Amino acid sequence: MSKIIDGKEMAEGLRKKLAIKAEEFVSTSGRIPKLAVILVGDNPASQVYVRMKKKACEETGMRSVVMVLPEDSEEKEVISAIESLNGDDSVHGILVQLPLPRHISEKNVINVILPEKDVDGLHNVNMGKLIKGEEPLFLPCTPAAIIELVLSTGVEIKGKQVVVVGRSNIVGKPAALLLLQRHATVTICHSRTVNLAGVASQADILIAAIGKPRMITLEMVKPGAVVIDVGVNRTDAGLIGDVDFDGVKDRAGFITPVPGGVGPMTIAMLLKNTLIAAQLANARQFSKGH
Amino acid sequence: MSKIIDGKEMAEGLRKKLAIKAEEFVSTSGRIPKLAVILVGDNPASQVYVRMKKKACEETGMRSVVMVLPEDSEEKEVISAIESLNGDDSVHGILVQLPLPRHISEKNVINVILPEKDVDGLHNVNMGKLIKGEEPLFLPCTPAAIIELVLSTGVEIKGKQVVVVGRSNIVGKPAALLLLQRHATVTICHSRTVNLAGVASQADILIAAIGKPRMITLEMVKPGAVVIDVGVNRTDAGLIGDVDFDGVKDRAGFITPVPGGVGPMTIAMLLKNTLIAAQLANARQFSKGH
Repeated sequence: MSKIIDGKEMAEGLRKKLAIKAEEFVSTSGRIPKLAVILVGDNPASQVYVRMKKKACEETGMRSVVMVLPEDSEEKEVISAIESLNGDDSVHGILVQLPLPRHISEKNVINVILPEKDVDGLHNVNMGKLIKGEEPLFLPCTPAAIIELVLSTGVEIKGKQVVVVGRSNIVGKPAALLLLQRHATVTICHSRTVNLAGVASQADILIAAIGKPRMITLEMVKPGAVVIDVGVNRTDAGLIGDVDFDGVKDRAGFITPVPGGVGPMTIAMLLKNTLIAAQLANARQFSKGH
Repeated sequence: MSKIIDGKEMAEGLRKKLAIKAEEFVSTSGRIPKLAVILVGDNPASQVYVRMKKKACEETGMRSVVMVLPEDSEEKEVISAIESLNGDDSVHGILVQLPLPRHISEKNVINVILPEKDVDGLHNVNMGKLIKGEEPLFLPCTPAAIIELVLSTGVEIKGKQVVVVGRSNIVGKPAALLLLQRHATVTICHSRTVNLAGVASQADILIAAIGKPRMITLEMVKPGAVVIDVGVNRTDAGLIGDVDFDGVKDRAGFITPVPGGVGPMTIAMLLKNTLIAAQLANARQFSKGH
């Protein structure tokens, strides 16, 4: 029998700590950490995520502002919106909700965000720091959440075989690099991988970030493995992970559920980054004034 | 019997093509591609490398300038030197020979280079592009050389199991990301990897970039594998690779020798990047003037 990793409970614990730190920050600095979220268009899933992020900010004693731009916005309008938020000293963190409408280039938009306000950690400068293992200003939220969830099991990462299934810029690749930094032997698989089951079933720690409902099945899981399910697939049967939870749960040593696993921790990491952004902005202001 | 991948011959072929392109560029633009190399201190190996790079530039019809700073230079002196080269329009590529003396921070220095002059591809912005698979201005030279050497064998990369042994910022990690981009299933191993032989011997393509003489031995190599040896270990017996060449060469399908494998191709990639830098600078100048 595997232990279910309760991401929801972990996130609540972390959010309580962040709320205390945010309160301290407000009372000592006189500033309130503020996150700006830019939403382009009306993708229903994106609307849900943005609402959750806004609510989480407020519950943690931070402010949030949501800028909603129409689906047919031009790229330069989105860039202008970011530039105005870059110049607004009351805004500490800026996040562009992905995916963007197809006619807008994600890279053009993301790289306009000031690296010191890039709380999603997706700016090229922050990604460059991540690959080199330099202290990045901000770790991308989902990969950071994955690390926290694995650490919570007490299973040591060092020397373990880790398989990351999925190679997205937002999850798979940065997660692989963070696990490598913690001294795991890391394999990255994807749609072109031959014999996925053979590779995945060697993993002591298996990260599923493919975006295909229940794709990871029993024979792909090593007995006792830590299984982290990043999938959030909206189906008629509700939210479904990338892992066949019911099939796998008795073989895995630890497993995250969907929902209630990676999702809540990802939002908690965003709050953490926003608070860090505010603290850094305050420190910069302080050093300028003295 | 394996086929020896002749990196020296490949590099010569590439350099001939680059010399023709450089000549065309000079005659159409009236500018000569120019590489500036900064060498801090008097590490003998670094001196050899710098000399080779300078000579290679000249033989390809490009200019080079070498700035030698004393071993006890302060970090800010090295940074000043870079800033002056950043501002010099006649310089198209800037390279800081690594390693730097221990009292100087590599990251502080490298990130001062203008990304559009960063012909080594090590600036955070260029690394960030690399991880995301965006067109980077410049690919790091050794990883780019590795890709060319693998492609020269005719062995398809897509779907293959690749094992990269070594996780440096300059070779291991960027090489892994480039191979992933070409749809290999990539595993990164290092000093903390448990059962290296077991993992490495599954590789269809094995990249050795550890810096330990003859560490990759027969039992770590799958019969027929492509073996790329990045090691350049100076020993009493001369230059020795990370692969036990004599022991492995009959089992591998293809193998690079040391010297004469990765090294010459790395320098050819640097020349390629320098020419690209000059072409880009010229295009920017042109678009400004019109």
